[in-house]
Order: sequence, then C-alpha cells, then structure tokens
Amino acid sequence: MIQDRVIITDVGPRDGLQNQLKILTIEQRLSLIRSIAEAGVPQIEAGSFVSPKAVPAMAGTDQVFTALEAEGFTTPTIALIPNMKGYELARAAGAKTVTMVLYASEGMAQKNAAMSMAGAEDITGDILALAKRDNIEVIATIAVAFACPFDGPTDPIVVEQIAAKFIRAGADQLVLADTIGAADPQQVRALTSMLVSSHGAEKLGCHFHDTRAMGLANVYAAVESGIRRFDSSIAGMGGCPFAPGASGNVATDDIAMMLQQMGFATGIDLDKLMHASNLAQELTGTAPGGRSKAWLQGYLAKQAS
Amino acid sequence: MIQDRVIITDVGPRDGLQNQLKILTIEQRLSLIRSIAEAGVPQIEAGSFVSPKAVPAMAGTDQVFTALEAEGFTTPTIALIPNMKGYELARAAGAKTVTMVLYASEGMAQKNAAMSMAGAEDITGDILALAKRDNIEVIATIAVAFACPFDGPTDPIVVEQIAAKFIRAGADQLVLADTIGAADPQQVRALTSMLVSSHGAEKLGCHFHDTRAMGLANVYAAVESGIRRFDSSIAGMGGCPFAPGASGNVATDDIAMMLQQMGFATGIDLDKLMHASNLAQELTGTAPGGRSKAWLQGYLAKQAS
Repeated sequence: MIQDRVIITDVGPRDGLQNQLKILTIEQRLSLIRSIAEAGVPQIEAGSFVSPKAVPAMAGTDQVFTALEAEGFTTPTIALIPNMKGYELARAAGAKTVTMVLYASEGMAQKNAAMSMAGAEDITGDILALAKRDNIEVIATIAVAFACPFDGPTDPIVVEQIAAKFIRAGADQLVLADTIGAADPQQVRALTSMLVSSHGAEKLGCHFHDTRAMGLANVYAAVESGIRRFDSSIAGMGGCPFAPGASGNVATDDIAMMLQQMGFATGIDLDKLMHASNLAQELTGTAPGGRSKAWLQGYLAKQAS
Repeated sequence: MIQDRVIITDVGPRDGLQNQLKILTIEQRLSLIRSIAEAGVPQIEAGSFVSPKAVPAMAGTDQVFTALEAEGFTTPTIALIPNMKGYELARAAGAKTVTMVLYASEGMAQKNAAMSMAGAEDITGDILALAKRDNIEVIATIAVAFACPFDGPTDPIVVEQIAAKFIRAGADQLVLADTIGAADPQQVRALTSMLVSSHGAEKLGCHFHDTRAMGLANVYAAVESGIRRFDSSIAGMGGCPFAPGASGNVATDDIAMMLQQMGFATGIDLDKLMHASNLAQELTGTAPGGRSKAWLQGYLAKQAS
C-alpha cells in the first residue's frame, strides 16, 4: 500500500523553548534537537535569530547551527528570522532554510514585530530575493491567519492575498499559523480548501496551537483539504510570549500518532518520539507532554512486551 | 441567522461517575445533575439500573430518578439499563427514556455483559417492544462501534447491520459508541457518512472518549457527516471500568465550546457549564476538567468583566 506522506516540522526547539520559563543551555538545546531527529521527524525548526534581549531563550542560536553542521547533522533544520539582521546571522551560521513571519493583522504585526503588515511584507520580499541568490530556502509563515488577539477574526481574503503574493514571489513553503490557537475546524477547512484550490497543496502547511483543545481537529480539517505539511512541537511545548492566551503548539506526539493511525506515512518512530518528549519535559520542567501521552505510553509498552 | 441545532447528552452522571474512584451520595449525584441542567444541557443520562455489586457508584439510581420526578425536574433524563430487570427498575422509577447497549464485537459483549452479541440484540428487541407499549423511548447504543480492546478493529458492516435492525425495530435514537476512545476522524467520517446515507442523521448520535486526544476531531468528523447528536461528559469524567485503556469521555465543556464557535446552537450557557464542571471536579476529586479549561476560564472571566 502506498501511503500519502505527511511532513511534520517540529518547532519545539524554537516556538516551544522560547515560551518555557527555564532557559536551556546550548548543549541542552542540541540534545533535544538530536533526540527529535533520532525519532525520524523530517524537519526541525532549531532556533531563531532574534534579539537575545527580546527572547533570551534563543540566545546563541548561531552556536546551535554551527554545532549541528560540525557534527554532520542530516535532518533539515530551519531558522526563524525576524528581519535582515536575522537573515545575515542565519546565513553566517550556515542555515539552509529560514522562516519569515508575515502578519494577517496590523495589531499583531505591531505588537510582535513593531512594524506594519506591509513593512513585514517588504522585508520578507527583500530577504526572499537575497535567499534565492544564496541558495537558501524560505518558508513564509502567515501569523494570526485565523484570528488575532488584538484585531479579532482574520479576513480570509487578507490571508489569500498575502499567500498569493509570496507563492508568486517564490517562497518554498507557505504556512498558515493559528498563532493563538483560536481556529475551529470549520474555519480551517474553509481557509485551507480555498488556498489549496488556488495554489495546490504542495507548498502549503499549517501551524496550530492547542489552546482550545481543537489542535487535532484542526489538523484533520486541514488534511481533508489536502494539506500535508504541519508544524508541531515535541511534548506540546510552545506558545507565543507576545500573544495573550496563546498556549502550547499541537504536540508532535499527538499529531504523529493520529496521522499514522489514519494511514499516513510520517517517517516517525513513536517509541523514539516518546523519548524526545520525555527529554523535553525533563529539560524544561514545564512542557505539558502530548495529550494522548497516558494512552501512548501504555500502547508502546504493550508493543514492546 | 438560523443555526443548526446540536443536541448534547451529558452522560457524566452515568458514564462519568461509574468510573471515578469516589462514590458519590445520592444528594451529590442530584446536585451534579441539577447543575448540568441549569447550564442548559438538553439531555442528561442520570444513572444506570445495573447491579450495585458490579457498579457500586450507580447504587440507588432509583432514588435519583424518583427525587428528580418529585421536584418537577424538566430536563429529559435517560437511564442506562443492561437487561430486563434493569428495564423494570427504570420503569418503576419513572424513567421516560432508556439506553440499551448493543455490541459490535463478541469479545466486548462477553466481558462487559456476559452475553453474546445476538443475546444482547434479543434482549434489546424484547425491551424495545415493551417500551413501545409503556410509552418509554429507547436509545440503542452500539458499543465498540469502531474498535474493541479484545477483538481489534470493528467491521463497519457489522455496525451497519445492527444499526439497520434497530432503526427498523423503532429505536428512537441509535448511538455509535467509541467505547475505548480508539477511533480516528477518518474512520468516524467513513462510518457516520455510510450510516447517514442509509438512515438519515436525525436518529443517529455519536459517543466519543478522548483517550487518544482525538475526541473533538472525531466530533468534527461526525458533524461533517451530518450527525447532530453527541454524548459527552461534564469535566471529561468517564471511561468504562471493564474496557482496558478507556479514559474519559469527550468533555461537555470542550464539545459545547467547539460547536458554539462553529455556529451551532447547543442551548448551553458556557459560564454555567463551567460551574457544573467545577462541581464535578470538587465532588469526585478526579474528574480531569475540559481540555480547554484554562482557556475557557480566561475567556469567560473576560466576557464577565
């Protein structure tokens, strides 16, 4: 049986760690990244090149990328960058893929990045042009694609316009982010089916938070629209420190389990993923763990016996 | 805007309480039932007429029904009954609606009820005939409609045959129960769309457990098939004491929030529902609470201020 493949990007070492109370050392961050890779997760957002004053947990991300390159780490890694300076730092550290954040609301653009929506688009356009020259892939993530904590529900047409602009401009992936975990599955189905019908599913991904417990329902709704790329976070770590009410990303543990049960190939070994999840909980002390953890542990123990 | 109505049946006072460590008093059970009704939940499974030796938490269910009738309780209540003796007791206590359990696997029929699948069908058929005479409504619930902890995945054709038989025989509702919380949304979509196309959605309902965190995803999948009746449990209490691996039902808290956000009319006041959920947690000490509780409490506090 040929299975449809779903590509999961674990954003725990970035979106997850930046919102934990405890700041990990570079070596701890590396051990978590290696552990996620060992479980077969196909892509890892390994850190961000942001101001260490704004996000202390991400200080030293250059050392993370340099160390991974030095040890011949083979899992594709991604660096989140907020601006041109971040791009230069990521390139200098050897990043092969960068994520730029676009905004579907003015309120979030201002609060999260102190710029306008148009300003973020301009910078992303500039970086995209440079990245093409530098042979670096660009993921364009549209924040608050479903709702904004400041401006309320997001107009799908705004999202479609930003998506169309950056797909035309050559972004390698376009991710719809439910930054504050406010989306419901009907809304996800509507927006993703609109975008898939305009642009095809190949470059489109979704990024959900599990704030209202609808994370897996939203993943399923997007899968139904044909989406085959998802961001998730090991042990359900996460959240955006600048978005009131945001809680953890949908857990890689839960999404991998559900997708595999539905017959999709993820390349992930659930048993090894549980080790990575346990490590995330040990290192941070606050990562919640997957919502299916109690069941999954019992299931894996039974398989092993 | 005319909203589609969804009818939620809170099964917490039965499916929930029977699996809690603490056995509540009759007065505590009554206070929980009243609290759920005050939140506007349209139907409540108020108890079961089973052997108090087998399920001590359900001892005295006759007193629960008698007390509710005496105080002029108006929310429709349901009594779960396992056999003819249970039916007689429920009728004597004034129950207007009873739930009978059918089995989609021999393993579960034997373990849960010490009978065969055919035996359960015979008894249900007999009770259905009596109930018609007694003007009592009958809900036929098909246990392990998706998977059985003893026999593995359930054949959808078996479920369809049982459902067709009892819809033809005059069951007022037919509920597909994911007794052990094993279903995934693709499986739910497939089975529910098959049954809805055969029988229409009006009499069909679904009963999900959140064991693998897919409860809301499964609700959404069923909604997509046209299902508009769901069982859920206040504060996510629940599970079947005879089914290894079963954990709580999908929480009424979560399902009401999601359905209302998607624009369905549930008749439920989320603020009052939170009081019922808190009461369930106080009374039992072990009810997990809705998975969206942290968010929902913050949201409700903000609405109130």
